Amino acid sequence: MLKVRGFKFSGISAGIKGKDKKDLGLIASDRPLSAAAVFTTSAVKAAPVILDAERIKNGCARAVVVNSGNANACTGVSGFEDAISMAEKVAQLLGVDEDDVLVSSTGVIGQRLPLDLIHQGMPELVTSLGEEGAQDFAQAIMTTDSFSKTHSVTDVIAGQEVTVAGIAKGAGMISPDMATMLAYIVTDADIDSTMLSHALKVSTDVSFNCITVDGDMSTNDTVIALASGASGARIVEGEVGHLKFLSMLEEVMIALARMIVKDGEGATKLIEIIVRGADSAEDAKKAAVKVANSPLVKTAFYGEDANWGRIAGALGGAGIALDESRLDIYFDNVQIVKSGLFTGKDAEEKATAAMKKEEFSLVVDINLGPHERRMWTCDLTHDYIRINAEYRS
Amino acid sequence: MLKVRGFKFSGISAGIKGKDKKDLGLIASDRPLSAAAVFTTSAVKAAPVILDAERIKNGCARAVVVNSGNANACTGVSGFEDAISMAEKVAQLLGVDEDDVLVSSTGVIGQRLPLDLIHQGMPELVTSLGEEGAQDFAQAIMTTDSFSKTHSVTDVIAGQEVTVAGIAKGAGMISPDMATMLAYIVTDADIDSTMLSHALKVSTDVSFNCITVDGDMSTNDTVIALASGASGARIVEGEVGHLKFLSMLEEVMIALARMIVKDGEGATKLIEIIVRGADSAEDAKKAAVKVANSPLVKTAFYGEDANWGRIAGALGGAGIALDESRLDIYFDNVQIVKSGLFTGKDAEEKATAAMKKEEFSLVVDINLGPHERRMWTCDLTHDYIRINAEYRS
Repeated sequence: MLKVRGFKFSGISAGIKGKDKKDLGLIASDRPLSAAAVFTTSAVKAAPVILDAERIKNGCARAVVVNSGNANACTGVSGFEDAISMAEKVAQLLGVDEDDVLVSSTGVIGQRLPLDLIHQGMPELVTSLGEEGAQDFAQAIMTTDSFSKTHSVTDVIAGQEVTVAGIAKGAGMISPDMATMLAYIVTDADIDSTMLSHALKVSTDVSFNCITVDGDMSTNDTVIALASGASGARIVEGEVGHLKFLSMLEEVMIALARMIVKDGEGATKLIEIIVRGADSAEDAKKAAVKVANSPLVKTAFYGEDANWGRIAGALGGAGIALDESRLDIYFDNVQIVKSGLFTGKDAEEKATAAMKKEEFSLVVDINLGPHERRMWTCDLTHDYIRINAEYRS
Repeated sequence: MLKVRGFKFSGISAGIKGKDKKDLGLIASDRPLSAAAVFTTSAVKAAPVILDAERIKNGCARAVVVNSGNANACTGVSGFEDAISMAEKVAQLLGVDEDDVLVSSTGVIGQRLPLDLIHQGMPELVTSLGEEGAQDFAQAIMTTDSFSKTHSVTDVIAGQEVTVAGIAKGAGMISPDMATMLAYIVTDADIDSTMLSHALKVSTDVSFNCITVDGDMSTNDTVIALASGASGARIVEGEVGHLKFLSMLEEVMIALARMIVKDGEGATKLIEIIVRGADSAEDAKKAAVKVANSPLVKTAFYGEDANWGRIAGALGGAGIALDESRLDIYFDNVQIVKSGLFTGKDAEEKATAAMKKEEFSLVVDINLGPHERRMWTCDLTHDYIRINAEYRS
């Protein structure tokens, strides 16, 4: 059971997603929190993203309220007013300043929030807050997710036991540089908002910015980090405790990022793609993104077909420096391509065996330079089509 | 029946794709031809692409030999030798210069050509050449195509009847800026190779460079244009006949391009995407490509769901200048979004009706500038997954 000192959680059914499905969640604290966030880079931002980006500037927060089932995106000025109203109601009930309440929404784009349902659910949402409510909250933020996503790490910093925990939702519209994902990191470390913000950005770069399900970027992506300081462990810039905190944060965020891909819409496999030997960091990223998003590569993963030709094809179209005669490709430790050529049937059989697992790695060595990039992706399956052709219908 | 003076065609089964499936095709002429070509821009180019790019430089050709079932890509120096050997055999049998024979291959990447089968089939391929063999050729170049693709236009230029005809194959790996597609344009116009090359590039930009099936670029994309001059109609730069020829070429190439999308792997619908009002030509292209390749948009097409929120989401991630409050979206003539907001249930019903057709258009007006881009795409379906997860297995 995920518990972090200084935080209470709740999750209830307000009727947004129909009867009995949890769709409204709350994280709150009885004390001021250090707060930081990163948001979608999409040019089309949902109303709550615009609101939170403004409210997070002072580095303070007391609560986050989240609904699923409706993204409150592409809803114009009215949508913005709805987001403010949602926060206002929570602030009243908690007795905190309205500006200290953050808001997230996830779900269908382009429909007004059912604000009456949300307001009706608010009293129950607030009264059911509890230290052990994280699982309810995790369920309340799910959309097409098939399992709830939480991860928690505890370690000793400055003589105190410190916990860093995270709760996330993902599923569709997952793309590098943020996605239809929401993630909330809560910690009882005592860390100021500037350091927390920096730590969050660094960890986002090696976790949520390294995943893709379908290459689609969302209007609502949000990662919020909140620190209560309730452990009494003060995080001081450059001290060993700082490094330990960064490492804990990274572990939590990578664990959540991998869960999001594993639960990608219709996914049956989690694939770690490592591009090595690129001529530049930009090339390494371009290559990893291209391979990770190629429908032909992702259907071959689904078919457990070590079709390295499709990988070479994707690399060829990535717009990077590439010398075909230097290219090496591995599935796990099995080298299937050496210096641009197929290594033979024996390797292919072993590679196919590796692909039968639920998790495996694909290593591409361009052998032109020192740059590397890691990315997690999933296979493209019948269920992806089923979910997305039927969703909303 | 597609017939063009000065050309003979054939298509036979050499056993590359198994028994009784046509997989080896030939276009040949008894006179020197003006020749031009455009090729894949992928960094990973198949052996025949590299060979043809060299051989087309002098603007002359006498024949093109094509096999399906094997792409002869990622096959190193040996693959290059195989392509040369394939052309050499044809040249011997036709009694023409080896340098005047072009070669194309399409199919699985990374396996050596079955050169023995190809050589064994050559005599039959050459003896079966005939003026009425275009349909056999069209069938011989198919891979996962479900129908053969030909289009022909005849008009009078300079007092002579002139025909421009095209034969293409497509299906998977179709992406802007060329694809796993091969196309052969044959005409009896009398046009020099410099003008032919220019005309081919201009027409490629408004046809094959405007289509996408899955955003994957191929190692083998090739469009070859051959002119026999047998009509006696001389095409002179800037004369009215020149414009007429360009218009005929464009008509043939757009018709073939649309057929390729219509026959996209698993496709059930052909969608014309028109992005208007972009701030720059680059933005218009980026927006059209992003929407045309978005798996979420393409599955919504399949589900006949007028889910404009996914379109707005894709535009948001396109990296273009965009003001959400100016955005207009139409399905055919039905406006579903006006100034960034949903126009209501009535419009949604009409848009859904439009989507039930096999062909419809999606118009996105960004309302920021004068630039426009058209693109054809298809829906993403269960059959795409089935074909690509099972192909090669």
